[in-house]
Amino acid sequence: MTIPVSETLDNGLRVVVEPQPWNPGLSFTILVPVGATSDPENRLGAASMLETWLWKGAGPRGAHAFADALDALGVRRQSGAGVEYTTFSASLLPEGFSAVLELYADLLMQPQLPDNAFDSVRALALQELAAIEDQPPQKLLMRLRREAFSSPHGQPVQGVRETLEAMTPEALREEFDNRYGARGSVLAVAGGVDPDDVIRLARKHFGSWGGETPEAPEVRLTSPHEFRIVQDTEQVQLGLFYKDVPPGHYDFYASRLAAAVLSGGMSSRLFTELREKRGLVYTVSAIPGSVKGFGYLTAYAGTKPDSAEETLDMLLGEIERLSQGVSREELDRARIGVRAELVLSGESSRARAAALARDVFILDRARSLEDVEAEVVDVTLDRINMFLEGRPFKDPWIGTLGPGEVVK
Amino acid sequence: MTIPVSETLDNGLRVVVEPQPWNPGLSFTILVPVGATSDPENRLGAASMLETWLWKGAGPRGAHAFADALDALGVRRQSGAGVEYTTFSASLLPEGFSAVLELYADLLMQPQLPDNAFDSVRALALQELAAIEDQPPQKLLMRLRREAFSSPHGQPVQGVRETLEAMTPEALREEFDNRYGARGSVLAVAGGVDPDDVIRLARKHFGSWGGETPEAPEVRLTSPHEFRIVQDTEQVQLGLFYKDVPPGHYDFYASRLAAAVLSGGMSSRLFTELREKRGLVYTVSAIPGSVKGFGYLTAYAGTKPDSAEETLDMLLGEIERLSQGVSREELDRARIGVRAELVLSGESSRARAAALARDVFILDRARSLEDVEAEVVDVTLDRINMFLEGRPFKDPWIGTLGPGEVVK
Repeated sequence: MTIPVSETLDNGLRVVVEPQPWNPGLSFTILVPVGATSDPENRLGAASMLETWLWKGAGPRGAHAFADALDALGVRRQSGAGVEYTTFSASLLPEGFSAVLELYADLLMQPQLPDNAFDSVRALALQELAAIEDQPPQKLLMRLRREAFSSPHGQPVQGVRETLEAMTPEALREEFDNRYGARGSVLAVAGGVDPDDVIRLARKHFGSWGGETPEAPEVRLTSPHEFRIVQDTEQVQLGLFYKDVPPGHYDFYASRLAAAVLSGGMSSRLFTELREKRGLVYTVSAIPGSVKGFGYLTAYAGTKPDSAEETLDMLLGEIERLSQGVSREELDRARIGVRAELVLSGESSRARAAALARDVFILDRARSLEDVEAEVVDVTLDRINMFLEGRPFKDPWIGTLGPGEVVK
Repeated sequence: MTIPVSETLDNGLRVVVEPQPWNPGLSFTILVPVGATSDPENRLGAASMLETWLWKGAGPRGAHAFADALDALGVRRQSGAGVEYTTFSASLLPEGFSAVLELYADLLMQPQLPDNAFDSVRALALQELAAIEDQPPQKLLMRLRREAFSSPHGQPVQGVRETLEAMTPEALREEFDNRYGARGSVLAVAGGVDPDDVIRLARKHFGSWGGETPEAPEVRLTSPHEFRIVQDTEQVQLGLFYKDVPPGHYDFYASRLAAAVLSGGMSSRLFTELREKRGLVYTVSAIPGSVKGFGYLTAYAGTKPDSAEETLDMLLGEIERLSQGVSREELDRARIGVRAELVLSGESSRARAAALARDVFILDRARSLEDVEAEVVDVTLDRINMFLEGRPFKDPWIGTLGPGEVVK
């Protein structure tokens, strides 16, 4: 059993470490709460463009030297802006840890944000926007979020053509100065490291980081409604958005387990009814999501145009039917599935670092895998069925994408 | 350091185990050499349809009871047919291991293949085909393989509409009888298990499995040529296919490291030249692939129509430029990157089980991570540059997908 160690530096940066003594590698995630939710309306896509621009040189190194330095340390990196935050993740061999942290400190505290790279940053953002147009499921689910939230949570991470084209280096630098900072950010580390060493190195490299990050805005929703995107595709895409309980809520894991009964494994209701029995869909899912203080459930299916209406009716029907409760066998299967997933996620330093960073951001505390497992085990049949009796999933936002008017 | 333990059962099934004593979970992969390469021309898609059909009931259990039984053991499963083989992978908690193996033995040795599920299996296959039509990069890369191979390696895993529609339960049962069997198949296990226990359980549950599996066909290629798919997309997709050295070849890791210099990290040539300097593409990659006895390199880029020609020229140019060799710094960065990836893959029981199964299929032996690492470390600057001097990457097959005639 490994317990995460937490520490808040004087500048407000929160550091959390989960040691995995058996692990010859390590991973970290730096979470900076800068995302689409804090993009000003006339600067949609700013968080995402900023993340790209940061890599164009930092501290004493230009873009190329910076990339060379990271690659010379064998760093496998992932980074990107999302709805609420931007994450910078890296996996590496422990001997390079201090040098890598120093590079990331340069990236976040001393980026060059050079004028001469700005046009290529914008060109990339426009390319990404075009690529989404060619991915019907992603396009529909992005629009679904936009239709459901009236708060900035619906803003497109990638921005829109107009705001990307209007962006200037000055505007983006202003966004960096206003929004990047230590207070509110999180450094989470998992792997073959000593927590004291990590906290010492965090203080050394990030101790002088100043500044604050934006507060999370409150969630507001539109009224549930339907919308259609007409596009000449082979398959019709269907998306539903339901309100759900927020992270930290007493019923949070009851709801998670209900979603697993609906869509967790081969024996899940959606898989069985829509795919196995009727062959209506190749892919069908109901996936819970959350932002700070708010939870939602997104259901998705792709099907042939002539099956679209039946598929939508069945999807709505199965989610409605949850209010009649689940059986003991369904709950037991959902629970062991969720538990197995938790235990198996413990293998991966990358998954653990990302989960710890998100925990601190969403819940203000890091949980061990065992803590989460205990919350899952605590959900009794009575408890989940009392929760479902209240009909928690109702009145969805409904979106379709496909050729012509395929859905009434 | 963990060394895989190998054993061949009397029926020819090869079992390989990599113990990870620290791991509270485990994963296994069963590889059966049944894939698109052994689909008869008039039964394209048979291997893929079979894999779906197997799940429709096995041993004493119907489809639903079978799914319930696996989910009740908390199994996280993945399975699917590919070019050369079908894999059945599962991750789970060790206490359920024997019961899960017994279920998989039923699946592979006693499937019910019931008539009444056949139509839904075919409907799923047609849905999958339609979904690929809506994914331009996948569609192009599938076609690229089809254009390059004249041997069955080019056959589409998902089949084509005509063969799927003509398939009958009798035909598919015949394919199962002819192609599924113990000899040639592999069971690979990684995680918190004792190798002796695994081999005992394998013998118990799979010892009575009979039959043989198809021999891998020899690779044959067409002459390099160009092709175009006209489709109304936002982005133009570009794909290149190059011959490469086969797995087990003296220069295999020299070639892998050359591919990493081209496309391995932030400082890689394609990322730097096409994305960072010019903003031509959001995604660009050159990814080595292999089948038994043959290696290839696939390059991919997505870009705006008015940049397609420049992007293609640069892609071709960068790959051509490899023949001038790489610098010591490039090699060092590529090598530590590949090494870090190897070490980090050792965290995941699922990744290790899959890699071991593939090793046994492709190379006839399982390698430890340390064995692979040693092969990577062995590639000196002289060795890689001598390899590249021979201009190993030349005369590509070139495919484009996009609106109208975007590329000369």
